[in-house]
Amino acid sequence: MFKKILIANRGEIAVRIIRACREMGIQTVAVYSEMDKEALHTQLADEAVCIGPAPAKNSYLNMENIINATLLTGAEAIHPGFGFLSENSKFAKMCKQCQITFIGPSSEIIDKMGNKAEARKTMMEVGVPIIPGSKEPITAAEDGIDIAKEIGYPVIIKASAGGGGKGMRIVNSEEEFINSFKMAQKEAMNSFSDDHMYIEKYLVNPRHIEFQILADEFGNVIHLGERDCSIQRRHQKLIEESPSVVIDEDLRTRMGDAAILAAHAVKYTNAGTIEFLLDKNKDFYFIEMNTRIQVEHPVSEMVTGIDLIKEQINIAFGNPLEITQKDVKITGHAIECRINAEDPDHNFRPSPGTIENLHLPGGNGIRIDSALFCGYKIPPTYDSMIAKLIVYGRDREEAIKKLRSSLGEFIVQGVKTNIDFQYKIINHPKFQAGNVDTHFVQELMSEEEN
Amino acid sequence: MFKKILIANRGEIAVRIIRACREMGIQTVAVYSEMDKEALHTQLADEAVCIGPAPAKNSYLNMENIINATLLTGAEAIHPGFGFLSENSKFAKMCKQCQITFIGPSSEIIDKMGNKAEARKTMMEVGVPIIPGSKEPITAAEDGIDIAKEIGYPVIIKASAGGGGKGMRIVNSEEEFINSFKMAQKEAMNSFSDDHMYIEKYLVNPRHIEFQILADEFGNVIHLGERDCSIQRRHQKLIEESPSVVIDEDLRTRMGDAAILAAHAVKYTNAGTIEFLLDKNKDFYFIEMNTRIQVEHPVSEMVTGIDLIKEQINIAFGNPLEITQKDVKITGHAIECRINAEDPDHNFRPSPGTIENLHLPGGNGIRIDSALFCGYKIPPTYDSMIAKLIVYGRDREEAIKKLRSSLGEFIVQGVKTNIDFQYKIINHPKFQAGNVDTHFVQELMSEEEN
Repeated sequence: MFKKILIANRGEIAVRIIRACREMGIQTVAVYSEMDKEALHTQLADEAVCIGPAPAKNSYLNMENIINATLLTGAEAIHPGFGFLSENSKFAKMCKQCQITFIGPSSEIIDKMGNKAEARKTMMEVGVPIIPGSKEPITAAEDGIDIAKEIGYPVIIKASAGGGGKGMRIVNSEEEFINSFKMAQKEAMNSFSDDHMYIEKYLVNPRHIEFQILADEFGNVIHLGERDCSIQRRHQKLIEESPSVVIDEDLRTRMGDAAILAAHAVKYTNAGTIEFLLDKNKDFYFIEMNTRIQVEHPVSEMVTGIDLIKEQINIAFGNPLEITQKDVKITGHAIECRINAEDPDHNFRPSPGTIENLHLPGGNGIRIDSALFCGYKIPPTYDSMIAKLIVYGRDREEAIKKLRSSLGEFIVQGVKTNIDFQYKIINHPKFQAGNVDTHFVQELMSEEEN
Repeated sequence: MFKKILIANRGEIAVRIIRACREMGIQTVAVYSEMDKEALHTQLADEAVCIGPAPAKNSYLNMENIINATLLTGAEAIHPGFGFLSENSKFAKMCKQCQITFIGPSSEIIDKMGNKAEARKTMMEVGVPIIPGSKEPITAAEDGIDIAKEIGYPVIIKASAGGGGKGMRIVNSEEEFINSFKMAQKEAMNSFSDDHMYIEKYLVNPRHIEFQILADEFGNVIHLGERDCSIQRRHQKLIEESPSVVIDEDLRTRMGDAAILAAHAVKYTNAGTIEFLLDKNKDFYFIEMNTRIQVEHPVSEMVTGIDLIKEQINIAFGNPLEITQKDVKITGHAIECRINAEDPDHNFRPSPGTIENLHLPGGNGIRIDSALFCGYKIPPTYDSMIAKLIVYGRDREEAIKKLRSSLGEFIVQGVKTNIDFQYKIINHPKFQAGNVDTHFVQELMSEEEN
């Protein structure tokens, strides 16, 4: 096994990785920006190396400095965590050139999955469902009608060159099509000087369902069931859970098989996540693959008993997976709440500052992954997520009760947090009934305004 | 279900019970001594009633005040936790008279099991093994020889009226018997003016193994496997684990059956623990039953997934057990370390004071049951246990690694603690090999002195 690993990250995920290494008997090297000198990850690791000033590009994104710190301390591998360099193929390649193990897939795989168009093409080739739509951009409304008929209404018309909602129309029936297409095309022309359009099936209130996979270097791929991450605000996940209330054993098998197929298609290695959208008819569509560990990985750990960080390290070292798909059993129910230092009363703007008082909930079925301590100064520079509260219960009802109890107990003084907002979400009848989709948070906020 | 429960305790167990109630939707009433006005349990409960000044006899042992607080707040039941009034049959009776549900067995059962001689007699009658010995006190050495021959050497000769090691001799063979008996008897006469002696089998380095049981009011009794509590200092448990390395499936079944038999023998209800000594030959002997929840209950919760506090409340309300023996599965391995505010360099004397800095470990498989917070003033009045660190791993090896990592991370500043001492214990090759008995801590301390 590796003797020493450098963790190229900060915050709770760096602490999470340090803990896993410790349990494996592996020495750890933390890297830190000048602003993170007193951070928990800096204090907890066996060694810590300063890699530059606060802006990430000068420290946590500074590949040369991180590689140098690795060589300097004699670490054999780098765990990139999530964010920062975790999906940077150039960095993965650089590691390889320096004979440092990058704990993640190869740079080639990162590239293949990172390019969304190429990923979509690969999935189509191997038969993983993608959102149906035009294969090439079109300009004639009549071609659009044919495609829409084929994929079924509602559809969404998008400007090929588009973004920000410009040149975009949702069309519910053939009658509306020509008119909507022309309006969208006109808008596209005005906005982007480009009248190429794109038709895609429009998913009404889909759920975000993702599958955790593990793949070793010997071609073994398993999935660890799904995570339901439908509770999002502006595409930022807030609450994640496993299992999902809408996935039964049959659908889990089918989606899991698709996830494994997707991984095999690119000869994937290490931990990864296949993200799907699931519509009301329980049809699912690949959206993208994340080629790294994810924030919400603990919920899969709780229900499967598998430590994903340790598995990542084992796989990167070249060990074969010790578990087969048959060994993976989903037991109980886990929910994660992201605790962010942000001000819900001011549009969730970041709320950096010093933690003056801190009480973390604890007890039966409560897991806290955080880098907080009393007196810690949350810098304004980084992501606002400061802790993850993960609860585990025998079933969803018990997990929600634990969430309610522990959120109610959670005290962070000195900065504003989203704790009360999370409390509101989990107490909402729709959340409690499991009747949510990716628009839920937006609807909740509108309800509140009225 | 109960609408409101009063918790007649303090510290981490009061917090533990408050959390369970919250998860069950039950309102909570804390009681507190004047010294515990700022304590976590006082702050966390929905209501809190001061029941008197610091000495326990004026507050946590003041039955009238506690009953009055219950009636005043309209609580329907009292959870006594452990210690204080938890095994006080008079209090249980008083609750009943006031039509308050005492969450525990009836006063009659508490009495029956509380009287050690009577408990021993009851166990003998139903066939639960007790440590073999004389049924009645004897005065003639020759009668002693007959008994010793029957139960086998080594035996221990004790003064019937004895205590503190006076009039006590361990005898390894028949040759030594007469002489030892006479010396012990003489000592007994000198010390207690009583020459009645008692012979019992002497267990060489036994392990302390206890079985958790749950019994409802309908005669259903199940056991939740064992806890190995051999790591003790002066009969105070320090580390507890489940399962035990020395118990295989067959022995678990036999000891579990004996525990269930013991519970049936007194028509036991609610949660209870049957304590056994286990000798090198894997013969086990009943020592006593604790008719309450125990400090170390979380390790059983971790390996069975059963919440013991919730089960206690359910049973006390009159609900039948929803689980049968068949449903109880032992999965993984859990270890609990008691964190005490005491000074190992000064004979473990209590070390009260203010928590100036606190960092609780967290992450995957780490559970903290505590009433600590930054700034909390540990009073000198109560038990020195301030937190319980419980780890859960797939097997004992992983659990020990988690323990090592999390003990290494645990920071309590402002008072002395036994954290480093616990760290020493769990890093000892004998502990790691599971090769320990109730004398282990004493031996470790002797090693250190040399």
